[in-house]
Amino acid sequence: MFDKIIICAGAPHPALNYLDLPSDRICLIGVDGGAWQLVEAGYRLNFAVGDFDSVNQDQLAQIESASQEVLKYPAAKDDTDMEIGLELALSQDERCPIEVYGAIGHGVGRLDHLIGNLWLVYQERFRSLIPRLIFIEFDQMIRFFIPGNHSLENINDCHYLSIISMTPTKSLRIAGAKYNLEPTDFTLPRALVSNEFMDHHPISLSFREGLIMVIWEKGK
Amino acid sequence: MFDKIIICAGAPHPALNYLDLPSDRICLIGVDGGAWQLVEAGYRLNFAVGDFDSVNQDQLAQIESASQEVLKYPAAKDDTDMEIGLELALSQDERCPIEVYGAIGHGVGRLDHLIGNLWLVYQERFRSLIPRLIFIEFDQMIRFFIPGNHSLENINDCHYLSIISMTPTKSLRIAGAKYNLEPTDFTLPRALVSNEFMDHHPISLSFREGLIMVIWEKGK
Repeated sequence: MFDKIIICAGAPHPALNYLDLPSDRICLIGVDGGAWQLVEAGYRLNFAVGDFDSVNQDQLAQIESASQEVLKYPAAKDDTDMEIGLELALSQDERCPIEVYGAIGHGVGRLDHLIGNLWLVYQERFRSLIPRLIFIEFDQMIRFFIPGNHSLENINDCHYLSIISMTPTKSLRIAGAKYNLEPTDFTLPRALVSNEFMDHHPISLSFREGLIMVIWEKGK
Repeated sequence: MFDKIIICAGAPHPALNYLDLPSDRICLIGVDGGAWQLVEAGYRLNFAVGDFDSVNQDQLAQIESASQEVLKYPAAKDDTDMEIGLELALSQDERCPIEVYGAIGHGVGRLDHLIGNLWLVYQERFRSLIPRLIFIEFDQMIRFFIPGNHSLENINDCHYLSIISMTPTKSLRIAGAKYNLEPTDFTLPRALVSNEFMDHHPISLSFREGLIMVIWEKGK
């Protein structure tokens, strides 16, 4: 039984200072270079997974000695390291949140990796993870929402909130924000960016059909 | 008659050294902070557009004196500055390429702006621009493809090539790459990342239905 699953992927400078203190009820998964980031920061891992082509032999040896289990895959494989990490999260068969660090790049990782990681939520096999998944970086946080009514809090003093549909959407409504939206249908994906919180009150988001990505952003 | 339309948006550090030398057959559009980047680099603009909330009064005066036409919009408006820039490109009624700098952030801009700019290709009004649109940064280049047969050259010594569908896709085929794909249908958007050029030969991409984004990436 875990309270939380934490995955750290290999993008540079993961926001590890946002990590809660480790406890035996947290499942810590290091994905490829992310495993090394965690080990270097002094954490012991439940799992290290990946092809480890981004770490050297000495780093791999340290990862192996700091991990309960190491799953090593060939570099040329169908799944990305991150997909293997999420499969592992799925296999834990928990309902707890899944926090992912170092996956959307904090602005300095590879753009194709960023897009590839966002696109994971389109995959049928990961559907059950969508409401539990949180991407966390220093300046941004991303969550995904399925149809219903949702309350979006201001977190980490993020100034901006962008509501971005990944699919066609029905009756998308935004209330309590700087820019509100009466229930509107969109037949194609639509990015409604740079909305703002009002006096730190939560923003209401509701829709009847579709898949929404929400980006909290500190602004630069 | 223009040979090329160049748009510079406001993300930090646009790859201006990739810009061809100015000529009277290039239409140069500066979008908000991007107008200042161009003026500061010594260019004269055909158009400067935006709410200019990211530049100060002195910078705005310099933009005004270096631009043939300045279109100033209120900060709270329905269209983003970039959408206004693309509308302007559309109104030129040309068939030439549209190069966009400073729109996908070179890794240091806002993530929601990056996503918002990629999502522009979903908008019906910009459909005719899709095959002409090129996003250029120091480490990346992005183009969009409609159904047909396409040859993807290695440009700027980019090591990686990622083929990412923005919609469901029919008969997607990749040939001449490190990782090839026999014609495959995808019922949901799919990111095929980290493919590689072989000996600098072009990669063949073909598909029957859908919208594909291709990212050329130097790798980090």
